[in-house]
Amino acid sequence: MLKVFSHLKIYHRLNTRLSSSLSALKEDIIEPSRALTKETMNPNVRDAEYAVLGELPARAEMIEKAIQAGQNKFKFDNVVYCNIGNPHIFNQKPITFFRQVSSLCENPDLLKIENRQLVSKLYPSDAIARAEILLKNIGFLGAYSDSKGVPHIRQNIAKFIESRDGYPADPDTIFLTQGASEGIHRVLQLLHQPNHHQKTGVMIPIPQYPIYTACLQLMGAEPVPYYLNEQKNFEVDLSRLEKSLRMAREQNVNVRALAVINPGNPTGQCLPEGNIREVIQFCHENGLIAMADEVYQANVFHPQDHPFHSFKKVLRSMGPKYDNQELFSFHSTSKGMVGECGRRGGYVECVNIDPAVLQELYKIFCMFSCANVQGQIMVDLMTNPPTEGDASYPQFKAEIDAIHTSYHRRAKRLTDCFNRLEGVVCEEAKGAMYLFPRITLPPKAIREAKRAGMSPDSFYAMALLEATGVCVVPGSGFGQEPGTLHIRCSFLPEESLFDTFCKNIERFHKEFMTKYKD
Amino acid sequence: MLKVFSHLKIYHRLNTRLSSSLSALKEDIIEPSRALTKETMNPNVRDAEYAVLGELPARAEMIEKAIQAGQNKFKFDNVVYCNIGNPHIFNQKPITFFRQVSSLCENPDLLKIENRQLVSKLYPSDAIARAEILLKNIGFLGAYSDSKGVPHIRQNIAKFIESRDGYPADPDTIFLTQGASEGIHRVLQLLHQPNHHQKTGVMIPIPQYPIYTACLQLMGAEPVPYYLNEQKNFEVDLSRLEKSLRMAREQNVNVRALAVINPGNPTGQCLPEGNIREVIQFCHENGLIAMADEVYQANVFHPQDHPFHSFKKVLRSMGPKYDNQELFSFHSTSKGMVGECGRRGGYVECVNIDPAVLQELYKIFCMFSCANVQGQIMVDLMTNPPTEGDASYPQFKAEIDAIHTSYHRRAKRLTDCFNRLEGVVCEEAKGAMYLFPRITLPPKAIREAKRAGMSPDSFYAMALLEATGVCVVPGSGFGQEPGTLHIRCSFLPEESLFDTFCKNIERFHKEFMTKYKD
Repeated sequence: MLKVFSHLKIYHRLNTRLSSSLSALKEDIIEPSRALTKETMNPNVRDAEYAVLGELPARAEMIEKAIQAGQNKFKFDNVVYCNIGNPHIFNQKPITFFRQVSSLCENPDLLKIENRQLVSKLYPSDAIARAEILLKNIGFLGAYSDSKGVPHIRQNIAKFIESRDGYPADPDTIFLTQGASEGIHRVLQLLHQPNHHQKTGVMIPIPQYPIYTACLQLMGAEPVPYYLNEQKNFEVDLSRLEKSLRMAREQNVNVRALAVINPGNPTGQCLPEGNIREVIQFCHENGLIAMADEVYQANVFHPQDHPFHSFKKVLRSMGPKYDNQELFSFHSTSKGMVGECGRRGGYVECVNIDPAVLQELYKIFCMFSCANVQGQIMVDLMTNPPTEGDASYPQFKAEIDAIHTSYHRRAKRLTDCFNRLEGVVCEEAKGAMYLFPRITLPPKAIREAKRAGMSPDSFYAMALLEATGVCVVPGSGFGQEPGTLHIRCSFLPEESLFDTFCKNIERFHKEFMTKYKD
Repeated sequence: MLKVFSHLKIYHRLNTRLSSSLSALKEDIIEPSRALTKETMNPNVRDAEYAVLGELPARAEMIEKAIQAGQNKFKFDNVVYCNIGNPHIFNQKPITFFRQVSSLCENPDLLKIENRQLVSKLYPSDAIARAEILLKNIGFLGAYSDSKGVPHIRQNIAKFIESRDGYPADPDTIFLTQGASEGIHRVLQLLHQPNHHQKTGVMIPIPQYPIYTACLQLMGAEPVPYYLNEQKNFEVDLSRLEKSLRMAREQNVNVRALAVINPGNPTGQCLPEGNIREVIQFCHENGLIAMADEVYQANVFHPQDHPFHSFKKVLRSMGPKYDNQELFSFHSTSKGMVGECGRRGGYVECVNIDPAVLQELYKIFCMFSCANVQGQIMVDLMTNPPTEGDASYPQFKAEIDAIHTSYHRRAKRLTDCFNRLEGVVCEEAKGAMYLFPRITLPPKAIREAKRAGMSPDSFYAMALLEATGVCVVPGSGFGQEPGTLHIRCSFLPEESLFDTFCKNIERFHKEFMTKYKD
């Protein structure tokens, strides 16, 4: 019988015990097991880790469902999702002008002459004008655009980059993407050499937003970690880069690229210009492609002392010697003050990339068609917002400023809150949306975590969730220096609820430390 | 020197000739070549083929740019893009109700009480009601949804599937995707076994929409072609499936899945129920996962004789013996009468899939966040359109019917046009958006094509483009039986221009045949 099926499915259960009944045997024959199981699926997919999904958010969801079902046995009324940078779930309002334009683009009937009078009562003149320009240039909102993105929008992005950096940008090297993650994935796919005698490696910062590790694991490539310097505000440390590269090469890894997240996620630093220059020099000397994840470029809270410097600007400032230094820079509509995460808008600028390689990148984009046009429109609006003199400018500016200053205040308040806690040290975020406090737990808590089969930071985060409803990500999800413990906590909860939010964390921490005092 | 750089970049040129000047030598040292070239990029990406991109559309774009720049040396005024199923570029209007709802969702201010009176003059009551339901259930349009998609929308899709098939559907097994192509890619990624001692293979129909081959090539897996039976209206031929599978297994390929496109692209067939049953039986007997690409399920033109049967319905009708037969079914907002290609909406229903595997699929979706919410909304509208009694129903029905009957008329007219041509045989499309006429070219044309380094069908298609502006895809882009030649031509051009469109094709063909008469 086995021979008959040798070319067919592998059976899960084949009860060969003589005592088995005929019917049980029949069942085994008639019902072949599934072709796709955890054992027979892609092991790279199975083994890839993604900490933003995991025990903690799963538990958070269960708690939320229990509360919604009226089974609230908890000391809180709702889960506070500080585990992801998802501003709108905290009632952050979308930017009015952006939504007005996208709404007009959706419904071309609104722009018909017979509706003009009514529509002008609902929409400001510049929103109508912008929608008309977009629709004229997009042509047909419901059609596939150029696989790279609408040319008009790419031109506008190029202008934005030029005015940001003071160096030219070429619309033909800009690809619109479904959020930054698609861009990151495509670039990693492009440089991966699956049939090479050496494993492809990409240097990634630790701590790191885990999309990099996950993408590399999915394709069977090797994350090559380098530790950020926590003692120096999470800057990139050249000697650590060198050590990490040397070790990887000694282990026969074909290191091809180096990724930097700036402003940092989860670490909140804004890298000084000199540090970026060092990184670019290091890439240049070692034949590495630079990948700059700059999705938080607008979330900068100390622009005087810690401004955002784009990798592109620093690279261009280094002169013609670096004209072949490859750089991919990623941006997104999900962050900034826009926070339109659900729209999946973003772009990648490809700097100094071989035109023949760009053509191959274009081919992959063609296979999966264009990025969604609604996301493209949001990229256009984000990179070309109303300017002084426009009818919508005052409201736009007020909205952006209100979000920005509130982020700053919330970051500050949460930093102070963490720093008031016993055994916790928290650097104030210079950028991005998170704090990454370092926590020292009593040995008893660490022993208890071990007994529970959890890392100590996960144990702490789970206790925080159960006591307060606050869901954070343990530092181990991003990687952290051995012997250190952290949590990543967004500072996005509504400002009006911030007092309670902070008090809950403080009360929990005190109780936790008391409980596990040795 | 080489030793010094042995761990660094490989230099393009290293002029070691003694006569080289010092400055040239210096340049070689100072300016290392790029790290990422066609030689050092991912060979799977480089070697992947995607015929929808290629010489022909590139030439079409050049011609269009020349015409736009006022350099019209052609006998036509515009390029007619029949190479892709992109209905809106032919001025096909979006479905009014769908865009009204999406437009209201975009701009929450429109739903405020103070704007109600004005808005009710611009929007029908059921569009307002639907937008309110969607916004209430989505929560925050600008936030990431559940990575699988908004639960409310997945429930609505499940209801749509249930009413289509007469069998239950589970919202938890439905994943919203960025168009169907993302779903196809994720499923192939899931079943690929990159480190297996055998290469992973997936059976794909020939002719075939090339996303399957392209995705498999990208990940280093093996497309296992099986020929559709052109003599029998492009049905799936069991003996050919068996032959193809046997050959692949003899060549040590680990064949894991079988893909079917129904209604067919590029071939336009609607498979009879019995044929689908045969395919499912074949999958079951051979331990293959079924992949049903059903994006054209609404584009059916002879519903009496050739109705659409979903693979899910046929599978469920085959009884409990098939309860472990895995099936992935793909759908999209890009096709049907909706044609919202730019929105990148779609879903995959996972039938009989191991829950542990579904959990891993969910993990990949979490890594790349949710499908864009605007696309999700369009899936909701497509699967749950207005029904009788709704304020918008009469207009909705009129719009859908007008597009549908016009598609049918255009398909018929273009079929007749092709069948009038010497040496051309064209089956009328039972479904989808394309015709796939078989063409017989004179030996002289075939010799001329060879001289030009082109396949004969590409040569013919290029001549058609140059003479008429009509851009089609040569059959070789989809695969065709050796010794046969085809082109794929969408029947989407505006109906009012159809006479001219057909006449141009006829005139060109006559001239071509005269020119290449032996």
